[in-house]
Amino acid sequence: MAKKTPIEFWFDFSSPYGYIAATQIDNIAEDHGRTVLWRPFLLGAVMKESGGAPLASSAMKFSYMKTDVERFCRLYGITYRQPETFPIGAVAASRAFYWLEEHAPAKAVDFAAVVYSAYFEQGKNIGEPEVVLDIAARMGIDRAALEQALADPVIKNRLREVCDEAVSRGIFGSPWLVVDGEHFWGADRLWMVEEWLETGGW
Amino acid sequence: MAKKTPIEFWFDFSSPYGYIAATQIDNIAEDHGRTVLWRPFLLGAVMKESGGAPLASSAMKFSYMKTDVERFCRLYGITYRQPETFPIGAVAASRAFYWLEEHAPAKAVDFAAVVYSAYFEQGKNIGEPEVVLDIAARMGIDRAALEQALADPVIKNRLREVCDEAVSRGIFGSPWLVVDGEHFWGADRLWMVEEWLETGGW
Repeated sequence: MAKKTPIEFWFDFSSPYGYIAATQIDNIAEDHGRTVLWRPFLLGAVMKESGGAPLASSAMKFSYMKTDVERFCRLYGITYRQPETFPIGAVAASRAFYWLEEHAPAKAVDFAAVVYSAYFEQGKNIGEPEVVLDIAARMGIDRAALEQALADPVIKNRLREVCDEAVSRGIFGSPWLVVDGEHFWGADRLWMVEEWLETGGW
Repeated sequence: MAKKTPIEFWFDFSSPYGYIAATQIDNIAEDHGRTVLWRPFLLGAVMKESGGAPLASSAMKFSYMKTDVERFCRLYGITYRQPETFPIGAVAASRAFYWLEEHAPAKAVDFAAVVYSAYFEQGKNIGEPEVVLDIAARMGIDRAALEQALADPVIKNRLREVCDEAVSRGIFGSPWLVVDGEHFWGADRLWMVEEWLETGGW
């Protein structure tokens, strides 16, 4: 039997629905003998191409989103606290992830989960590089090395490439799941992703 | 026991996801001893307030939407053909619905389902009043009376009121379900609506 490909999990660290998916995706993958390739990217960079607008861009949408995310989290039994600063720019957190993926791959996914939790459970402003560095340091990651990496052209370029890849593959939302080339947008599609994994598609 | 309130089903006749929900919602309601209050409205009128943009507003989004809607319809075993003219203005179809609701209530919901099918299965341009009148006539509805109604200030005003109600209640997407005051946006939330109906909420 051919080796099963990983589920690609694209998300923006500023996305509540990305956070929801992040708490579920590894379990879903495991249930179906898959791994997950975590792919943080910058939704803002993609929205220039897709013409999308942030959730918080209208009072009407923001109000629905808050109710909906809280209800979604209650259903899954996960904590959610609407961050005061929202949305934030996830450049530092995303760069940190790709540096870790290269230099301490075992820690990259844990780091991403902790960043999400810091933002959506503890209300920390993960848009601030200092906050990102503190999170990393508490995980035993070399703070000074990471600080340097955040300004390293190689890492900057790596994140840019990832965002370009998102645009070129038509990935314009968060979370965004790719299963064997099939694209699914939204935390509200996890049930469909599971159905797809179970049946092999339809 | 208190009488169960109807499920409100808000939709735009131009919305593929509204069409998907329209094929499912009556069965879901029946399974839980509910009725459905069909509420066609004009998403365009609401988007002025919500800052939303039509699905077809960017090539990237439109491409995903087509794939996704077709996949969704295959899953539910319903036909879908992307209409050539998309989106269309649903003023005539929506006015016709509210006139029927007043004058031939038994036919209003059937009419809505037939209009959706004419657009998304048969590719008819339901944005044209003539097409809407033809559909109605084939259902045994008085064509001349309906034609007059489409220009009647009372009916025009009725649809305007419905759209105002959507805005004032924060309803900015299609389909939009309201269950006992709880709002759910999207065909991809039907599973959550069912969960809500089953459990009484969480």
